[in-house]
Amino acid sequence: MKKKSKVNIKDVAARAKVHPSSVSRVLNPKTRGMVSEEVAARVMRIAEEMGYSRSPLASGLRTGKSYTVGVVVPDLVNPLFPPIVRGIERVLSDHNYIAILADSDNNRLHEDAILKSMKVRAVDGLILATAHRKDKIVDQCIEEGIPLVLVNRTVDGRDVDSVTTDDAKGIQWAAEHLLELGHRNIAYLGGPTDTSTGNDRYQAFLRMMKASEIKSSRALVHNAKAFNEQAGYDGMMHLLEKGEAFSAVVVANDLLALGCLDALQERGLECPGDISITGFNDMPFMDRLQPALTTLRIPHTQIGREAARLLMAQINEPGRARVALKLDPELIVRGSTAAAGK
Amino acid sequence: MKKKSKVNIKDVAARAKVHPSSVSRVLNPKTRGMVSEEVAARVMRIAEEMGYSRSPLASGLRTGKSYTVGVVVPDLVNPLFPPIVRGIERVLSDHNYIAILADSDNNRLHEDAILKSMKVRAVDGLILATAHRKDKIVDQCIEEGIPLVLVNRTVDGRDVDSVTTDDAKGIQWAAEHLLELGHRNIAYLGGPTDTSTGNDRYQAFLRMMKASEIKSSRALVHNAKAFNEQAGYDGMMHLLEKGEAFSAVVVANDLLALGCLDALQERGLECPGDISITGFNDMPFMDRLQPALTTLRIPHTQIGREAARLLMAQINEPGRARVALKLDPELIVRGSTAAAGK
Repeated sequence: MKKKSKVNIKDVAARAKVHPSSVSRVLNPKTRGMVSEEVAARVMRIAEEMGYSRSPLASGLRTGKSYTVGVVVPDLVNPLFPPIVRGIERVLSDHNYIAILADSDNNRLHEDAILKSMKVRAVDGLILATAHRKDKIVDQCIEEGIPLVLVNRTVDGRDVDSVTTDDAKGIQWAAEHLLELGHRNIAYLGGPTDTSTGNDRYQAFLRMMKASEIKSSRALVHNAKAFNEQAGYDGMMHLLEKGEAFSAVVVANDLLALGCLDALQERGLECPGDISITGFNDMPFMDRLQPALTTLRIPHTQIGREAARLLMAQINEPGRARVALKLDPELIVRGSTAAAGK
Repeated sequence: MKKKSKVNIKDVAARAKVHPSSVSRVLNPKTRGMVSEEVAARVMRIAEEMGYSRSPLASGLRTGKSYTVGVVVPDLVNPLFPPIVRGIERVLSDHNYIAILADSDNNRLHEDAILKSMKVRAVDGLILATAHRKDKIVDQCIEEGIPLVLVNRTVDGRDVDSVTTDDAKGIQWAAEHLLELGHRNIAYLGGPTDTSTGNDRYQAFLRMMKASEIKSSRALVHNAKAFNEQAGYDGMMHLLEKGEAFSAVVVANDLLALGCLDALQERGLECPGDISITGFNDMPFMDRLQPALTTLRIPHTQIGREAARLLMAQINEPGRARVALKLDPELIVRGSTAAAGK
């Protein structure tokens, strides 16, 4: 997020052809009404384009609160996120707060633009579901002292409030379930390891390979490039092409698992007859697939509620110690897993 | 929404134990910072509780825009709404606007509180997905001159911008598809007729009964009390208990159709072997059910985009004629419908 040269208020004023004091008025919600609507719109657009904001949350210039919180999700259409957003909203509403929601469409440039736009609007804090393990946007918020909570995914090595699922436990339980069913040749299809969800689930499976009776080789451990159906299809095809026998796959999320089922069907293989599959998340309707998906249910709404509670606590008590809250998933056994050699 | 006695600024001040001028400062985003945070929070809470707002959008007191739009959905966890919200956001973002999203949980009291909260925050307009055919909240917005667009559902007999699916066409196409497959005894399971979606789909089926070779009696036409799975299950049980033969059911939405499939399974009936089923919406994963659902796909994202465009046009050109935009659905034929007597 390093800028070639730091943009200041004069640069914005010059581009917008107004006096710097007008830029200052526009970017302060309390004085915006003193400027014509046409000028306000132009200045806000140019300030966003140039990456300028007065960082009201950090500068101490601001004396009031906006009672708004920015919530950024990577993909609102992914059924994982709506119940998390609902949980966030419920708690914010109890505190007289309201959410400004933005969907970044898994695009870092969008995230950057969204963040600027939210800063211009003087949100009192942010809840981000978009974090990568190394994340410049998160770094920037921490440096600027913007109250921040990460949700679903977290970052490496920074002291930040976060609410995630205990991903390692989930993968351990999925693998143990398959071992109990008599499977020993168990493959793993993971997600992008630049996210905490992808990495923590992957590391948990590697630990299970060492500590349990899983006999598969590392050739049957593969991390897909995205958490979606196409990546799941490609990943399962990749595993099948290794030529090494396996009777079960621990899959790192439900969308990947759906792609796996497509690949099996295309190859004339049956689930669970030939290969058992476990997912992660328990998205809506996973009980209605054929076969119904064995998966780890994550406590979506509770994750959202806890994230909003942490943010409210942080806003009201800025020096408060940060908390990394991990919530347990729940193993839901359905038809996609069966006894080995059945 | 008639109040027993109109709440004024003095009532709020008395309850909050502050001078009326402080209430005025708090409720104006431009002067809120002049009051302590503790007082601001208390006044906003009390103003909301008492139903008082300074109606900045209507009063003409306001000279600036907030560049925020309120979006209210009845149930964000219903897969119908996230892609609509995504479409809205994309267009708002192009106009330098941002969405304040609220989920009313199908609760009229929540909707009322949300509306008050958004008015206090001086949104420039509203997009509501929560409309009933007679809707006091919509009436109130129209009376107060708040720019407003209805999405997915609309109201009866008011001149208001709306973007909906052509529900009548969808039901006609579903019925024609079943007639082409040779079905004549076709039942109908609808939704709540106090919504435009429920009513328009119901009326369209009644017209098809008159105009086509459908032979069913009115006993096989039933409207459920909600658009959810439980109501679909109950509705199908109700139809089966009539004792009148039918080989197909036009169902007014996908969630209802899921409940119908559960009821058929419980009664030992097969879909489509014994009874063909059509849904409405094409929610995610409807292609993965067993059988995959024949349904009407609605253009979710486009509905959202068009709604945001209409709102932007209305904000920028207040006297503009209102538009009721109806978008065509698309019939998606899958495994839940088959030839009659097969």
